[in-house]
Amino acid sequence: MRILVLGGDGFCGWPTALHLSDAGHDVTIVDNLSRRLIDEELGVQSMTPISTPEVRLAAWREVTGKQIDFVELDIAHDYDGLLEVLSTARPDAIVHFAEQRAAPYSMKSSWHKRYTVDNNVNATHNLLAAIVEAGIDPHVVHLGTMGVYGYGTAGVRIPEGYLRVGMEGADGETIETEILYPANPGSVYHMTKTLDQLLFAYYVKNDRLRVTDLHQGIVWGTQTTDTARDIRLINRFDYDGDYGTVLNRFLMESAVGHPLTVHGTGGQTRAFIHIQNTVQCIRLAIENPPEKGGRVRIFNQMTETHRVRDLAKLVANITGAEIAYVDNPRNEAPENELLVANDGLVGLGLSPLTLEQNLLDEVIDIAHKYVDRCDLAHIPSRSLWLKQTEPAETV
Amino acid sequence: MRILVLGGDGFCGWPTALHLSDAGHDVTIVDNLSRRLIDEELGVQSMTPISTPEVRLAAWREVTGKQIDFVELDIAHDYDGLLEVLSTARPDAIVHFAEQRAAPYSMKSSWHKRYTVDNNVNATHNLLAAIVEAGIDPHVVHLGTMGVYGYGTAGVRIPEGYLRVGMEGADGETIETEILYPANPGSVYHMTKTLDQLLFAYYVKNDRLRVTDLHQGIVWGTQTTDTARDIRLINRFDYDGDYGTVLNRFLMESAVGHPLTVHGTGGQTRAFIHIQNTVQCIRLAIENPPEKGGRVRIFNQMTETHRVRDLAKLVANITGAEIAYVDNPRNEAPENELLVANDGLVGLGLSPLTLEQNLLDEVIDIAHKYVDRCDLAHIPSRSLWLKQTEPAETV
Repeated sequence: MRILVLGGDGFCGWPTALHLSDAGHDVTIVDNLSRRLIDEELGVQSMTPISTPEVRLAAWREVTGKQIDFVELDIAHDYDGLLEVLSTARPDAIVHFAEQRAAPYSMKSSWHKRYTVDNNVNATHNLLAAIVEAGIDPHVVHLGTMGVYGYGTAGVRIPEGYLRVGMEGADGETIETEILYPANPGSVYHMTKTLDQLLFAYYVKNDRLRVTDLHQGIVWGTQTTDTARDIRLINRFDYDGDYGTVLNRFLMESAVGHPLTVHGTGGQTRAFIHIQNTVQCIRLAIENPPEKGGRVRIFNQMTETHRVRDLAKLVANITGAEIAYVDNPRNEAPENELLVANDGLVGLGLSPLTLEQNLLDEVIDIAHKYVDRCDLAHIPSRSLWLKQTEPAETV
Repeated sequence: MRILVLGGDGFCGWPTALHLSDAGHDVTIVDNLSRRLIDEELGVQSMTPISTPEVRLAAWREVTGKQIDFVELDIAHDYDGLLEVLSTARPDAIVHFAEQRAAPYSMKSSWHKRYTVDNNVNATHNLLAAIVEAGIDPHVVHLGTMGVYGYGTAGVRIPEGYLRVGMEGADGETIETEILYPANPGSVYHMTKTLDQLLFAYYVKNDRLRVTDLHQGIVWGTQTTDTARDIRLINRFDYDGDYGTVLNRFLMESAVGHPLTVHGTGGQTRAFIHIQNTVQCIRLAIENPPEKGGRVRIFNQMTETHRVRDLAKLVANITGAEIAYVDNPRNEAPENELLVANDGLVGLGLSPLTLEQNLLDEVIDIAHKYVDRCDLAHIPSRSLWLKQTEPAETV
């Protein structure tokens, strides 16, 4: 298949592009390199030594003999460029990763809130409008987030995107229908993904586009079998307070001999998935497209859930690190359950890699190997959900 | 109270500003005059001879002795200007009309879709972010639309914004909760109002802002008691295919001796409210603000519902016009019921003006009086919801 990977230079996008190319698909990456520019803004860098797009793509060609094309383009603000790419490439599938994807970054300041909303909404809407204008029929596979459901809904089983509800009819009777699962986002970033959902729902209804929305958990792991083939193909590892996930923070803290900093009680339950599973899920979604004329197909893209404090214990058990409890900079419930259905992707053939069995590799191959590239000052999250909140303790 | 009226030069904004000023409030209009510029883009003008903002405001001062200030500003794209206005004025209430508000205009082309999304989302989000950054606590009163509910939900009683649903708990038990009523917008314009809802919900939850969202039906009528006080205060009347409502189309068609063009079977049921009631609703919402720390307060701002074909018959009975059925350019169900709760505003003191009793004034005072300013070529809607649809018949 002919596939565009929008945001194909990023943490999920890059290994996805390689995985799809390796599977025999004809891949073009479209990216404005905004993630690299944000590194410069924040004064940090990927702990792993990532190469430039040019070097990466040349290495892939050298190692595999396969060609991946690259178009540098800001799809949120260069609509004409996007329309041109779509009209020329006429792709069978488009993977849409081209959004600002960090909750703490989206909360840093008013500017960051506005950048995230403007960038993410216009990126998604430009894509949908351009598909209609170009008169093409690609399957759009979008990376959403488990965060659209919100972590605050205590003890509820989270289905895959839709909820059956009853509405009151004219004569008091109950009319049953399925609705998009009610959104309860926990940050401006997560909110933009709930806006995306409504954009997709409208264009699928009005213009009969085909869209799969993958509500992904927290991705862990750095390398896939493809990115591990050559040092020039290595994937990025973010450890800073804005882009680093809770697991990456723990890994770095243990690598430098600092206690693992758990926010609040650590009672927040999160969903996780390994990056190798992420790229498989996207390929599975692409190779099994939905029918035209239906609704948005939604899968929960996660394989396991853990409480943050249990995750800390898991890392502590492997590394011998201590655990320290600090104030939570986020405005969220201190404890929550998370029960998530993931039958869709498992049904298509996903076989989960677990943290329990695979975390040790990550500790040895990444955290300890590249610890010298880490700037300790950037580990804690300094983004505050509310103006009056105190920042998390400095490492 | 000190009140900002964003979009205070438009069809609803202008009479609202006058009504609030007349009631003794200290009013400032903020507007980028985009509605006047869109008239130029479309090559049409208000059928009523509206004055410039400067002449309007001078006339209001002359007639009433009251001062309304005016700031020309694009709140969607001049955030710093908006922040400055909010920080200086420190308003008690902000009425937010500053959005592109025509469904057919939002569907004219890819550009118009993208303009509507970018303008409306950034206008609303800039406002919310600026309120937080300025550290003020105004009550935001937003003009939403009945269209967020969608007209397609057959025979359902539409409550005021929220729906009680049951979710499945961990042990199979039902957990009841109230959610934002599921959105089912019928155009890109209506979709932007569903995005607004999620923006409001997030900022009310995270930042404890106070927001009232008024889901308004189709507004009819042109003058209020304030705009009728001087010809220089007259309100706009849109009859063109993009901005003219179905009722205005019928009024103009009857005034020029053309059959009333009903789209499809005319079985679409719509909610209506007179402009005099609109301005009262907004004042009632402002003078009865919600408590801090709750959820977004939602009222349905409408007083009656009619099927489009019955509306045509009402106009035909008054004017003697014929009725003609033409193809529907919209992608919607041909027939729908609409049962709407409006207890909130009625409970605050709204007393409805009905079409049955007040339509004749509109025919005589507006449609017949200003018919010479009408350009017949602009009456039909030329916006197509789908590329392959045929445009509505030309008048």
